[in-house]
Amino acid sequence: MFIVDCDVHNNWNSADVLLPYLKGWWRDFYLRGERTGPPGSLPHGHRAWFHPEDFKRQDVQPQSEAEHYAVMKEKHLDANGVDIAILTGDEPLECSTLGNPHLACALTAAYNDWQIAEWLPKDERLYGSIIIAPQDPQLAAKEIRRLGSHPKMVQVMSSHGSTMPYGDPFYHPIYEACAEEGLPFAVHLGGNGGINTAPFANGSPRYFCEAHTLLTQPAQTHLVSMVMNGVFEKFPQMKFVIVECGVAWIPPLLWRWDTNWKALRKETPWVKKAPSEYFLSNVRVSSQPLEAPEERDALWAVLASMNAKETLMFASDYPHWDQDEIGAVRLPEEWRENVFGGNALETYPRLPRPSAKTKARANGNGAAQQNAAV
Amino acid sequence: MFIVDCDVHNNWNSADVLLPYLKGWWRDFYLRGERTGPPGSLPHGHRAWFHPEDFKRQDVQPQSEAEHYAVMKEKHLDANGVDIAILTGDEPLECSTLGNPHLACALTAAYNDWQIAEWLPKDERLYGSIIIAPQDPQLAAKEIRRLGSHPKMVQVMSSHGSTMPYGDPFYHPIYEACAEEGLPFAVHLGGNGGINTAPFANGSPRYFCEAHTLLTQPAQTHLVSMVMNGVFEKFPQMKFVIVECGVAWIPPLLWRWDTNWKALRKETPWVKKAPSEYFLSNVRVSSQPLEAPEERDALWAVLASMNAKETLMFASDYPHWDQDEIGAVRLPEEWRENVFGGNALETYPRLPRPSAKTKARANGNGAAQQNAAV
Repeated sequence: MFIVDCDVHNNWNSADVLLPYLKGWWRDFYLRGERTGPPGSLPHGHRAWFHPEDFKRQDVQPQSEAEHYAVMKEKHLDANGVDIAILTGDEPLECSTLGNPHLACALTAAYNDWQIAEWLPKDERLYGSIIIAPQDPQLAAKEIRRLGSHPKMVQVMSSHGSTMPYGDPFYHPIYEACAEEGLPFAVHLGGNGGINTAPFANGSPRYFCEAHTLLTQPAQTHLVSMVMNGVFEKFPQMKFVIVECGVAWIPPLLWRWDTNWKALRKETPWVKKAPSEYFLSNVRVSSQPLEAPEERDALWAVLASMNAKETLMFASDYPHWDQDEIGAVRLPEEWRENVFGGNALETYPRLPRPSAKTKARANGNGAAQQNAAV
Repeated sequence: MFIVDCDVHNNWNSADVLLPYLKGWWRDFYLRGERTGPPGSLPHGHRAWFHPEDFKRQDVQPQSEAEHYAVMKEKHLDANGVDIAILTGDEPLECSTLGNPHLACALTAAYNDWQIAEWLPKDERLYGSIIIAPQDPQLAAKEIRRLGSHPKMVQVMSSHGSTMPYGDPFYHPIYEACAEEGLPFAVHLGGNGGINTAPFANGSPRYFCEAHTLLTQPAQTHLVSMVMNGVFEKFPQMKFVIVECGVAWIPPLLWRWDTNWKALRKETPWVKKAPSEYFLSNVRVSSQPLEAPEERDALWAVLASMNAKETLMFASDYPHWDQDEIGAVRLPEEWRENVFGGNALETYPRLPRPSAKTKARANGNGAAQQNAAV
């Protein structure tokens, strides 16, 4: 099986790795300015609910900056027979929380340049995401156009924390740039502090577990907002990808939403198709954390209702504590080829098609395949 | 079949009906003070997204205050063979949006007294809800204790719009009063303006359809918050009822939440059972608007995962545009007796058990039963 992993976090021990990519004033700002957390953290507005321990897997603790790739290669890419890994960074998504959009954009640009210079050349399996800070859409669009033609950058990515729902006209310059460059726009869980003051309905929860459970909500908001504001009528070729926000909440939302749209469609005449049709044509969802109820058949029935065979894409979320192992993802046998690779190849046209070499390697990844038995 | 309808809106043409129940300063405040909307509206903070037409069924347009009951009797109670209707008011839920908690409490108290004096005596099938304004929990608790022993008041009800998640310790005086009076605490969709500034994750949508689709979010927040803050450990006998917020979003939430709780339970040691266990023991959900996907089996599989046979209670939402007709609710045959009546009788101990008379009437409601065929 050809495996594309749509959410692999390339992290650092210290954000100081960005120093060579920060120029002048921004370098000074990073070195001397106020920051959240100890030296080496990227400036960002922190959340109000703190994880009771570490986000990272216990067995993934790189001791040096160089070890980050070595450990990823050993413990994930090679171990799991991953053919393509889409890098999604880690702290840079949190730049969306900063009040100063110029600082936020300088930091994401430094990350993007660091990723291109120090990650992508290391392994032909690695592809990149252009991380943006969406709080100034014009600046974000500039960053997208600056790097959009790089052949190994396959999407634009922003945190799902934001000051407004992403369908709002405020953000359309971002989609104009995505459409121009032929790149999907992805949202990834995160960025829920600072200027992004309302990541939950009805105010802030108190505990991490409570917050993490409810962090599907910003993705719900964005999905509905993108369709109802006509984004996919304006940019019909653009794909919207939801990453690390769970999956099974989507079909019940589509059921409710289709009913509402049928009754109320005169309010938004530019929304020409049922919401579930826009979902099928323009939205893709990465799998992690895939819900794992005891009632496997209930999960599969729900996923079938969103046509998961065509809309779901495997993601591991390496190296986080709640990472989904390839072998642990329980899906109907006839969906696996699409979900583990085919759908990503459709969504990201810049990814290479499987060659004879990668196919041979894919067929050889026996350990992963055996574990993958349902 | 014995039918309990858990959400029947008793409305008015003008809130002036409350005048006899408002005393002194509050009467003056109502008559001379600032208000939202035309004369006759109840003061409340309005939402930012406006319905493009009326909420009410076209065929339910009472011309006088007296006609409200007559039309309800003819078009709903008699027509659908309803044995018990739990009244839930209409505008009074919006008192939760008012800055002034004393005004809010005076208005809900006037509504509660009006309901008791002018609705409950009209028909033995009618039972009441104590509507509260939750923004001052001590005042709300006082209102609960003032009316809690009335034999026909079967629950305490608040809007799902609020300034904080309802599990927050701020609200516990309300649950103390509910537990003391042996009454369930219910939340009903509404109250999403004024001081309740954040009914959606990531800011306000722009359109009614968008907003209505996403108005499951406050219910998600409250459900998770109630469990994670230990409300059901503190008040183990109290039932929490979710009204008019949809249903099918619940099982996917429980799947995600159970997984999170298992991994993170050291953070909240007072949460002693899995979230799905608290759901079964303490939470009940009214059915309207029940999702109606083409994939009926997917819906039923999802509902089975929340043990809907024991946790779901029929509600019509009469007389609103998206009301669920009894005959249109598609459920497995073996759940129907519980969902249409049995579960409500369990949840609301003050409701009368079916007598020989009501049983005979119930067996006679042929029209509703025939329509109810799956």
